[in-house]
Amino acid sequence: MKYCDQCGHSVEYKIPELDNRERAVCTRCGTIHYRNPRIIAGCLPVFGEQILLCRRNIEPRKGFWTLPAGFMEEGETLQQGAARETLEEAGVEVQAGKLLSMISVPHISQVHIFFLAEMTGPQHAGSTSESSEIRLFAPADIPWDEIAFPTVSRTLRDYLQDKTTGTIEHRVSNILPRPRSEGTSE
Amino acid sequence: MKYCDQCGHSVEYKIPELDNRERAVCTRCGTIHYRNPRIIAGCLPVFGEQILLCRRNIEPRKGFWTLPAGFMEEGETLQQGAARETLEEAGVEVQAGKLLSMISVPHISQVHIFFLAEMTGPQHAGSTSESSEIRLFAPADIPWDEIAFPTVSRTLRDYLQDKTTGTIEHRVSNILPRPRSEGTSE
Repeated sequence: MKYCDQCGHSVEYKIPELDNRERAVCTRCGTIHYRNPRIIAGCLPVFGEQILLCRRNIEPRKGFWTLPAGFMEEGETLQQGAARETLEEAGVEVQAGKLLSMISVPHISQVHIFFLAEMTGPQHAGSTSESSEIRLFAPADIPWDEIAFPTVSRTLRDYLQDKTTGTIEHRVSNILPRPRSEGTSE
Repeated sequence: MKYCDQCGHSVEYKIPELDNRERAVCTRCGTIHYRNPRIIAGCLPVFGEQILLCRRNIEPRKGFWTLPAGFMEEGETLQQGAARETLEEAGVEVQAGKLLSMISVPHISQVHIFFLAEMTGPQHAGSTSESSEIRLFAPADIPWDEIAFPTVSRTLRDYLQDKTTGTIEHRVSNILPRPRSEGTSE
């Protein structure tokens, strides 16, 4: 950011008094502008044994498969955000249920949070503005090499593993950029 | 926000193409400014049976007791943010452990996330810039009428209840403003 969103004058980057991080501070009105991580809320929609995936129609990772998810909006709860994204991207009305994963991705300042969502039937949109294709996959057919994001692969993999033991757990983890592309905390 | 943070010209509020929400859009360069909920990350620090609370030295709710918590910063994980806040507010180095609570507070566009943190000893700061007093409380002595925020009361209450059964659970819930001040989802 280059300009103050309150008065339109230029900002400078400095550490405000009683703070310990550099912030954009307005050179005229003194407004301190904070930037914070954003939440991606999504669902893992299931119909029986099958899992719903969406093929991305937008960048980044256009053409790859993902779980329906997106930026949480102001004024909504996590579950409302996850259900809204599922409706927008897949044309499916669901209730966000159990928490499955909460994954910090610090190098892009995001936290990805996925909930299990039981579909009441196999119906879904054929496509939406954000998804070129929407499909229910049997576990054996999941296109692992074409999954859009590591948070999605991890959430899918952990869910399917938990299904074999019969106990669906939640997992809190991190994805770090280097030296390994997927580092789990703890 | 009144001005574009990229070019300093005035913004107007309108729904961008392919969107369904009003955003601040620059009248000159067209930049769309998104606002998203912020995460408050914190710990419930315990030493044996005792729980660490901080008396707030800053508004809002100055003088009331809280768990150490604050806005998650860019570039950190949830657990790093929770541990950082615990060090800053209470002078205690901890590792953020089990997830205890994840509470959406949509009317203020926040999500509060608390982790259990085992202290390695009873030492803590006497005070910090953000806390006028820091104290370990036996469960029976917790000042319930002087707790700063409902997300803190709920996290404490649920933790103490789980302690009696021996199984510490995580809970995903919401706090809504009206008609009741605390509405749990599901």
